[in-house]
Parts: sequence; structure tokens; C-alpha cells
Amino acid sequence: MQIASPYLLFIGDTTNQLSIKMACSAADWRPELCVGEYRIDGCTVSTGIKKLDIRQAVAEGAKSFILGFANSGGVLDKKWFPYILEAMEQGMDIVSGLHDKLTDFPELVAKAEQTQQKLLDIRQPKLEFVTGTGVKRTGKRLLTVGTDCSVGKMYTSLAIEKSMKKFGLNVDFRATGQCGILIAGQGVAIDCVISDFLSGASESLSPNNSPEHWDIIEGQGSLSHPAFAGVSLGLLHGSQPDALVICHDLNRTHMRGLPDSQFPSIETTIALNLQAAKLTNPNVKVVGIAVNTSSVSIEEGQRICAQLNEQFSLPCVDPLRDTADSIAATLV
Amino acid sequence: MQIASPYLLFIGDTTNQLSIKMACSAADWRPELCVGEYRIDGCTVSTGIKKLDIRQAVAEGAKSFILGFANSGGVLDKKWFPYILEAMEQGMDIVSGLHDKLTDFPELVAKAEQTQQKLLDIRQPKLEFVTGTGVKRTGKRLLTVGTDCSVGKMYTSLAIEKSMKKFGLNVDFRATGQCGILIAGQGVAIDCVISDFLSGASESLSPNNSPEHWDIIEGQGSLSHPAFAGVSLGLLHGSQPDALVICHDLNRTHMRGLPDSQFPSIETTIALNLQAAKLTNPNVKVVGIAVNTSSVSIEEGQRICAQLNEQFSLPCVDPLRDTADSIAATLV
Repeated sequence: MQIASPYLLFIGDTTNQLSIKMACSAADWRPELCVGEYRIDGCTVSTGIKKLDIRQAVAEGAKSFILGFANSGGVLDKKWFPYILEAMEQGMDIVSGLHDKLTDFPELVAKAEQTQQKLLDIRQPKLEFVTGTGVKRTGKRLLTVGTDCSVGKMYTSLAIEKSMKKFGLNVDFRATGQCGILIAGQGVAIDCVISDFLSGASESLSPNNSPEHWDIIEGQGSLSHPAFAGVSLGLLHGSQPDALVICHDLNRTHMRGLPDSQFPSIETTIALNLQAAKLTNPNVKVVGIAVNTSSVSIEEGQRICAQLNEQFSLPCVDPLRDTADSIAATLV
Repeated sequence: MQIASPYLLFIGDTTNQLSIKMACSAADWRPELCVGEYRIDGCTVSTGIKKLDIRQAVAEGAKSFILGFANSGGVLDKKWFPYILEAMEQGMDIVSGLHDKLTDFPELVAKAEQTQQKLLDIRQPKLEFVTGTGVKRTGKRLLTVGTDCSVGKMYTSLAIEKSMKKFGLNVDFRATGQCGILIAGQGVAIDCVISDFLSGASESLSPNNSPEHWDIIEGQGSLSHPAFAGVSLGLLHGSQPDALVICHDLNRTHMRGLPDSQFPSIETTIALNLQAAKLTNPNVKVVGIAVNTSSVSIEEGQRICAQLNEQFSLPCVDPLRDTADSIAATLV
């Protein structure tokens, strides 16, 4: 699967910034691949890049029309079909990270055949997996884990990869979600794998490698999230991480989407993840804490990170405001 | 989905008793639905019921040809095609609990159309699921959890249901695997659900019910199994159990299929499951221990159960040798 670039990021009429993380992640981490974003009336959020419509984007060379929004359940609303059909007519492939498959809609398949464009469901794993084995692999692995969903695990992983590359380390980012796959051009959408193969697919994502090589694996969900902890645990066991980085967003009081839920402390998150990770790697350790401090001032964010650093004796940073150098330095 | 009875249980040339648990479970729990088993040269195991070939079974009224074996990965070996084709020609539907779908093989689909027989992939969930919510449901739930895979969680669940019915309780067995679905005629093969919907599918399996009603939910895998713990955790969170029963097989020294793995103690299994279950039901408790003692004498098995009973202050039984009355009695 190869996604043709550059991209036009379609964010529709979205009003929730968390819902366009697919578009934002491409705009933030691979701006050179994005000609612009396309938003329609009613949209109140933005990726921050240039606004274009379909014709303008094609004139600037856009090759892929990215469905840059998500929703719980990953449903493809038919109200977007006119935009998708027009994009194909104008010469773009369609890229979706939703659960619903583009290729399940005859109207879209017919247009794709007529226009010779591709329908790419990047969330649908194309590979055949086997069940997990728990057998130790060579090379080293870091997994980002979270207090909740959508707290910055992918961004943290990418920031750590960036810092490690700067330090001259041999490192690869391993994508486990649609946003990461859009950025990396490959990976496995782990929450779309059949449950029986969760750990096996996770094992295949970071295969045997040279002893000094690091895989930086994008975490998913949270062991404390009632809906998604199973996915988090399968990924954790299959990843066999040597190093964990705890990710947290200051702006949370309950688990994403569940107003009545309890939010876990960082202590609890460390304890739960270390306990579970030891099943497949007894030598696992936590090497840092990454905090999304965007809900407070820079100074307040730094104060909180310094406090967490002291409390846990671990590097603690906002990887976007500060870089992840201090965490990457523990891996040299 | 309705499975036509009676069944012919096909166990092929299997040499591993654990691999024919689908056939055995039907023979043990619904003997009135089974006309016999069909085994071929090389087979060294048995369900213990009458041996018949396809023609003999049809003469005795068999309506469904059950693929009664399983393997890691759930692959359908093409060497079984001649038997499947003959069964359809003789007037039987085909029932499979493998991951590989009967309906994905054009040769089988063509024969099914020609003979007007059905291909039933009971492991493939037909329902559409949503992601989990963690919202508390009415009614009461018991989940069986294990030290390992294949230690008797389904048998224990069925034995508890049987004892509870004897006590006049309002109870339903909820099947989560292909064997249970064959027995119950409905259910969700939870390890075949897309990971994102693990908890949501588990929630849908035991919906709101009357306050005194009990669902006895068949557990899957083990929180200590490197390959399948994610499935176990999603099922645990979605089930919101009020009561847990710990299942164990005396005849294990390592996790199924993983010779180098560590086997968890019953203490560890209790602690891990209670800790995780409290996320969606803070009032959860362990109400019993079910031990498969078939590897030792009846007397030795009873001695071990008595010792565990004393050690944990919980009813401890071999539900097949002793019934599960003492566990069911805690739920009256």
C-alpha cells in the first residue's frame, strides 16, 4: 500500500478538534506532503494549514483526498459521498481511516473504476496474521502508553523518534493507527485487527532487528479505558517493550467519551503497565513521562513537568513544547 | 443463525484431545443433538460417542456436519474439502468454528448452491457492534476466568448454569466461543470480533435484564497468556461481572502452546482479575474456584479441592466430577 502525495486534508464540518487528529497529525508531522485542508460550512476547527477546495488543491498537484476526521465507531456518513465522488472525478485517490470501508460502497467502487482512482482503507489490515508467541525478539523497543485515549501517544512517539535521530540512533517509528500510517506510509491499524490476532499482529509490527536498533511503537488506548483496554493490553504484550513512556493530557477529568468514568493517576498508569508488560519482558522499565500541557501556559506547563520529574525521578516533558530530547537521552 | 440438528461431529485425523473440544463439548452437553462422530485413519482421539461415516449418519437423520476440530490460527485445511463436499451432497449443512470462512472458498460456495445446503461460519460475528460504554447494566453477571486457555471455563459455566437451574434461579448461559455457540445456538465468538469493538460486543452479550436474573458468561483466554490476554481483558471489562469463578487445570506447567512461559498461580489469577474487573464493577468478587482434576485420581482431586477451599475460603470443585452446586449456592 502506497499513499500518493501530496494530500488534500478533508475535515468536513467538524466542530471537535480531537476528531480531526488524522488531518492534524499529517499537517504537523509531514507538512511537505500536504497542499492544504478542505473545510465546509459549519466547520469550527482547523489543522492550521492553507484552505483550499478540491479544484484549487488539484491545481496545486494534490494526488490524494484524505478523510481527515474520525468518530466513535468509525462510520462513513453518506453525506460525504458527493465530495468523495468529486475528488475522484478531479483525479485524486481517496484515503480513509474509518472502520467503514470505502470499498464496501458500490457507488464509490464504481466511480473508482470509472476514474481509475484508488480507494485506500488504511485502517483495514491487509496482512495475514498469526496468534502471538511471546518469544523474545532481538533489537530494542519503546512503547508509549497513556492515562487515556488521545492524550498524545503518537505525537510523543514521533517526537522521541525525531530526538533519537538527532542523536544519531538507529530508530524506526512503528505506526499502529490510521494517523500514524498516514505519516509513516506503513503500519498496522491495531484496533482493526481481529481480537485473536492482537498480540500476533503487534509482534509482527516490530520484528527481529539488530541489537542496537530501536523501534518506537505508537501506543493505543489505555489500560484504564473500559472500552479499549483489551487493545492496549494486546499491543503491550506483543510489543515486548524494553522501555515505556507514560503519556498524559492535563486537560482530562474523565476517560474520553465516558463522563462517569474514573481517571487514573500517573502512579496507577505506571503500575498497571509495568505489571502487565513484565509478562513478555521482565526487564521493562519506564523511561519518561510526556505531558500534553497545551491547556495551561508554557510556564505553568514547565512547572508541572518539573514537579512530575521530581516526584517520579523520570524525565518529564511536553514533547511538542519542549522536544523529547531528555527522554531520548536515556536511550543512548 | 439456526444450526439444524442432529449433528455429525467430524474430528478428522486429529491426535490431540484439546483440539477436538468443539466436538466434545457438543457430545458432552447436548448428546441429544448428536447422532455420532466421524473419524478417519490416523485419528487417535474420540468424543466418546458412536462412530459413524457420512452415509450412516445421514441414514440416522443427521442434518449438520460439524467441523469439530480446531488449530492455532483457525486455518481450514483443503484436505478436508472432499469430506465437506460429500457431506453437502448427502444433504447436510456445514458448520465451522474456524477463523477461515467456509464462504470464502468458491468451491464450497458452488457446492452449497448446487445442493441447497448452508455454510455456517459460527465463529464469524454477524452483528454490528459499537464501542464499549462502561455504563452499568441491570441484572447480575458471572464470568468464568482462567489461569490459562482451555482449562474448562465453558464447561464450568455450563455446570454452574445447570446447578442454578436446579436451584430454580433465573439464568442464561452466554456463549463467547464456537463450542458454546454450538451448544447454546447463539452467542458471539468474541475472539473473532474486531479489537476496537471487544468491550462493546461483550457488553451486548449480556444486556439489561431483570434484577434477579443471572447471565453466566463463558470466559476466554487468560490475563496471563501473552497471546490472548487482550481478549480476556476486553471481555472482562464489557461483562461487568458481579461474580468471578477462577478456572484451573491441574495438568498444566506452562501456558498453552508456549513451552517457555510462566504459569500463574491461583492467587495471581484472582488478584489480576479482581483488579481489572473493578474498573467496570467495583463490587465484583470471586465466588468460587473450579479445578479440572482429570489428570489425578478422584480422591486426589477431592483432596486438592478441599485444600484450595481452605486456602482461599471459597467453594472449590471439579464441576464435572462433583457438579458446581457449591458455587451456585453462593448465588442464591
